[in-house]
Amino acid sequence: MMEYPLLLSHLFNRGRKLFAKKQIASRTLEGVFRYTYADFAGRVLRLMGALKGMGVKEGDVVGTFAWNDFRHLEIYFAVPMLGAILHTINLRLFPDQLAYIINHAEDKVIFVGDDILPLLKPFIDKLPNVERFVVLAEKENAVPEDLEGALNYETLLETAGPIEPRQDLSEWTPCGLCYTTATSGNPKGVIYTHRGLFLHSMATGMVDSAGLSESDVVMPVVPMFHVNGWGIPFAAVGVGANIVLPGPKPTPKDLVELIEAERVTTVAGLPTVWVGMADTLLNERHDVSSLRVIVNGGAAIPKALIETFEKKIGVPIMQGYGMTETSPIVTVGWIKSGLRELPYDELLSIKAKQGLPLFGVDFRVVGPDGKEIAWNGKEIGELQFRGPWIAKEYFKDPEMTKASFTADGWFRTQDIVTVDEEGYILIVDRERDLIKSGGEWVSSLDLENTLMAHPKVAEACVIGVPDEKWGECPVAYIVARKGFQGSLTKEELASFLKDRVASFWIPGAFYFVSEIPKTSVGKFSKRILRDRYLSGIV
Amino acid sequence: MMEYPLLLSHLFNRGRKLFAKKQIASRTLEGVFRYTYADFAGRVLRLMGALKGMGVKEGDVVGTFAWNDFRHLEIYFAVPMLGAILHTINLRLFPDQLAYIINHAEDKVIFVGDDILPLLKPFIDKLPNVERFVVLAEKENAVPEDLEGALNYETLLETAGPIEPRQDLSEWTPCGLCYTTATSGNPKGVIYTHRGLFLHSMATGMVDSAGLSESDVVMPVVPMFHVNGWGIPFAAVGVGANIVLPGPKPTPKDLVELIEAERVTTVAGLPTVWVGMADTLLNERHDVSSLRVIVNGGAAIPKALIETFEKKIGVPIMQGYGMTETSPIVTVGWIKSGLRELPYDELLSIKAKQGLPLFGVDFRVVGPDGKEIAWNGKEIGELQFRGPWIAKEYFKDPEMTKASFTADGWFRTQDIVTVDEEGYILIVDRERDLIKSGGEWVSSLDLENTLMAHPKVAEACVIGVPDEKWGECPVAYIVARKGFQGSLTKEELASFLKDRVASFWIPGAFYFVSEIPKTSVGKFSKRILRDRYLSGIV
Repeated sequence: MMEYPLLLSHLFNRGRKLFAKKQIASRTLEGVFRYTYADFAGRVLRLMGALKGMGVKEGDVVGTFAWNDFRHLEIYFAVPMLGAILHTINLRLFPDQLAYIINHAEDKVIFVGDDILPLLKPFIDKLPNVERFVVLAEKENAVPEDLEGALNYETLLETAGPIEPRQDLSEWTPCGLCYTTATSGNPKGVIYTHRGLFLHSMATGMVDSAGLSESDVVMPVVPMFHVNGWGIPFAAVGVGANIVLPGPKPTPKDLVELIEAERVTTVAGLPTVWVGMADTLLNERHDVSSLRVIVNGGAAIPKALIETFEKKIGVPIMQGYGMTETSPIVTVGWIKSGLRELPYDELLSIKAKQGLPLFGVDFRVVGPDGKEIAWNGKEIGELQFRGPWIAKEYFKDPEMTKASFTADGWFRTQDIVTVDEEGYILIVDRERDLIKSGGEWVSSLDLENTLMAHPKVAEACVIGVPDEKWGECPVAYIVARKGFQGSLTKEELASFLKDRVASFWIPGAFYFVSEIPKTSVGKFSKRILRDRYLSGIV
Repeated sequence: MMEYPLLLSHLFNRGRKLFAKKQIASRTLEGVFRYTYADFAGRVLRLMGALKGMGVKEGDVVGTFAWNDFRHLEIYFAVPMLGAILHTINLRLFPDQLAYIINHAEDKVIFVGDDILPLLKPFIDKLPNVERFVVLAEKENAVPEDLEGALNYETLLETAGPIEPRQDLSEWTPCGLCYTTATSGNPKGVIYTHRGLFLHSMATGMVDSAGLSESDVVMPVVPMFHVNGWGIPFAAVGVGANIVLPGPKPTPKDLVELIEAERVTTVAGLPTVWVGMADTLLNERHDVSSLRVIVNGGAAIPKALIETFEKKIGVPIMQGYGMTETSPIVTVGWIKSGLRELPYDELLSIKAKQGLPLFGVDFRVVGPDGKEIAWNGKEIGELQFRGPWIAKEYFKDPEMTKASFTADGWFRTQDIVTVDEEGYILIVDRERDLIKSGGEWVSSLDLENTLMAHPKVAEACVIGVPDEKWGECPVAYIVARKGFQGSLTKEELASFLKDRVASFWIPGAFYFVSEIPKTSVGKFSKRILRDRYLSGIV
C-alpha cells in the first residue's frame, strides 16, 4: 500500500473540493457572519501565505487566544498545513499560568481576539519569544498602539498571496499543542500530530460514535481552546458538515437561538451549557427539533438532566469522555442494539456512563493489585488508554511523563472506574480523590452527587482526611441553598445519607461554607480544601 | 502521540471483547451454523496455534480456496494476526491461472473447501511450494487419501492450543494478497497491509460511506475471494455487527431466505446477484423489510434495476466502486444532503454514478492533454487514486507496476470518467475500450447499455475497430432475446439508436451472435472479440 501520509490537509482539501458550497456561520456581537467552504478555503490559503511571510516555518509554535469564530477556524487549518504547531491558549487560565504556557510553548506569533486582548496585557512584556501579535478584528478596528508591531488580521490577509498546503509533511509532524488545566503544579503540554487528529476525525465520523456527517449542522459550544475543540473543527470540515460557531461569550439564549435559526443538528459542550440551555428551553418557546444529538463531555452529566432533555425537550444526550492527553475523545456513550429495548431507568444508567471506546482506541483497567479488573460493574481500578491519538509524553516534561505513562506503553488517566459486562466504562472518582476507609473504597464523586440531591444543598464537595481508626475518612464541605444557609444541619444530612449509602460512607464531619474553592475551569479544587484541612483551616 | 500500530488484531480484539455475544450465522448445505463472537474468537486463537505449529511464520503466504463461511472468516483473522499473508484464491479463475497465482504467490499452506477440492486436482502436482493442504469440512469427513499430508480443519483445531495475536507487528506488515482477474496476460498480485485494511475498515464504518455499525446484520454476498470480501469481514468484526455468511453456491432464493430469516440489514454484492434477487422478490412473497441498504459493486448497476429495488421492493441501492488495487472501496454513491429533494429521475442519475471518494482517499482525473479535467460532467479523463489503502505496486512485477502507477505517485485505474459539479464520478468506459471516432469519444459502455435497453436485445458488446475514414469506429455484437433470434435486424437497431445517441456513435456493423465471450468472472471479453475481428472472424 502507498505510504500516503495522514495529514490534516486531506480534510481541508476534501472540504473545499467536495463541499465547496457548504456553509460556515459565525456569531458576532453584531449578528451572524456567513460564508461558504470555498470562501473559507481561499482565506486559509492566504493566511498560510501570510504566516510564511512572517517567517513561520515547520516546527514553529503559533498561539491563538480566541473565541469560537470563523477566524479561529481559519487559523486551525492554516498553521498545521504549513507544518507549524497550533497552540490554542485557554482564556480561562490564571494570568501566571497563561504566561507560563506561552513561554513554555515558545509561541512565536499569537493571534488574539481584540475583546480579550486585555487579559494578556498584565504580562505582555514577559513573553520574550513572541515576535508578533495579530489582532482578530474587522479591518476598521485599529490595532492598539501600545502593542508593538501588532497587525490586524484582515489587513494581513488582504495583502497576502495564497499558498497550497504542504503535501511533503510526515504524518508524525506535530500540528497542535494544548495544556492541561493543572489542579496542582504547572499546566502540562500535549503535542498532537497530523496522524493522531486525522484518525480522531475519522473516528468521530463513524456511526457508533458521534456520527458526524455531511448532513450535520454542527455547533461546537465547547471552546476551540479546549483540546482541539474536541476535534470538531477538523472533523466537520473533513466530512463537509455545515458549521455554526457561537462566537464570543454566548449565553444559553444565544445558543438556543442559533440552534433554532441555523437548524443545528449536533451540538457539543460541557454540562454547565446544558443546565443553562434546559432552563431556557423549559421557560421559553423555541424550536430545537433539528437537533439529532447533544454530545456532552468535560464532566459527567447527571441522570436527571439527561431525562429532562430526553423526555421534556425531546433531544437525546450522548456522553463522551476524554482528556487533553487523549486528543480528546476516547469513549462515547452510544447504546448497543441489544440494549435499546431496556426499561428507561436502565437505559438512563447506561447513558450516564462514559460509554464504549472508539474504534482505534484500546483501554484497560488496572486494579489495586496491579491486575486487570473483571468487567462486572463492581471492581474498580485505574482507566488506562493506548492508541493512535493518545499522548506518549508531556511536552518538555520528562518527570510528569514518567509519572503518567506506564513502562509498557499505556497512558494513566488517574480516573478510577468500573466496567460492566457490556464494556461500558463508569468513572467512580479521580484516583487522588478516592477515599479508603477501613479497607473499603468510598467514592467522593458518588457521595457528592448524593448530597447534592438533597433539596437544601447547592454544592457539596467531599475529601478524604487522615483518620486514626479507619486510616482515612470522608469529610464534606457544604454550600446550602439560598434560604437554608444557617439552618441546614449535619444531623439532617447524615440522616439523609443513612438510607442512601453504606454507613462507612457517612462523612466524619460536615463543614458549612459560603463557597467551595474552584479551579480555573470551574471544577471543585479539592487540593485547596485538603491543604486547608491539613493546616487546620476549614 | 503514541506509535500505536494500526493492526487487524485491533478489530479482532474489539469484536471479541466488546461484542462477545454478537452472532455469526453461516449457511451450509444442511442448514445454518451459528455461533457467537466469543466462540469465533476462541477458534481463531486455536487456529493461530495450529498455523504456528505447522511452521507458518511472519511473511509466509497462506492460501484459501473457499466459500463465504465461518471457517473462511476464522482464517481471515488468524493468518494476518500471526504476521503471515492471507492469499484468497479466486475459485472462478481458469486452471492455468490458478496454478500460476498459487506458484507466483508461493503459497505454503492452502485451506480448501472439500466440495471445491476437485478444481485444484488437475494441477495439484504442479504446486511445488505448497507444503500442506487443510480441508475445510466437518470432522467426520475423511480427508481424501490421494492428497498427501492433508489435514481436516476441525481435527487440526481440536489438537491446537490458543495463542494471542502478535502486538509487535509493524502496521506496514503485509497481511493479504489478491490477484486481479486479468483480461490479458497473467493475473497481477496486490499486497495489502494491516494499516491499509485497518483504515479501509474505519472508512466503511463512517456515516457518509457504507455506514457499517454494530446495529447491522451484514451479509457479504460478494465472495471472500474477491478483494478481501470488499473489506466487510474485517470491518464487520471491528464494529461488532452480526454477520451472515451465505456459504456454498447460494441461489437468489437462498439469499432472500437468509435476509428474511436473519433480519439482514446490509447486503453487498455484484449486479448479477441483484438481477436474480429482484426476480425472486417480484415473484414470491418475502419480507425483506429489515434491509437498510444494498451495496452494489464490481460493475455499475443499471438505473432500471435501482428503480425496481427502490420503488417496487422498497430497498435503497448504493453504488460502490473499487478495484483489486484499491483494497477495494474508494467511492460510494451516497447522496449529499442538499440533493436529496431532487426529482427522482435526477436522483436516479446520481445513484447510477460511482459516487464520492471515501474519507482518506484522493482522486484526480487526467484528461487526454495530461491536465486535470474540469468538474462539469462532460470532460473525460483517466481516474487516478492515491491514499492509504491504494496499492503502490504489483507483487513481483516491476513492468506492470511501471505501466500502472504514475511517476508522481498515483494509481492509474484505466477507467475513463467524468466528474460532475458536486464531485460525483461516473465511469464512461475502460480506457482501452473507449473509441475515438472522427476525433470524438464514443463510450462503448454507454452504447452497450443503450442497446441492451432494446426489448429484443439480451446482450450487447461494443468494440472499436480501425476505420479508414474516422480512425476508429464502433461495431456491435448482439445476442438477441429468445424468440427474436434470426428476426432482429441491424436496421431496427440503428433506427432505435438514432433518437438516443449522436450519429457518429451508431455502429458501423452489427454482428448477431449466439453468445459473447466472457472472462473468468463473467465480464464481456472485448479482447477476444478484438482479436477475432482483426483475424477476420466474427
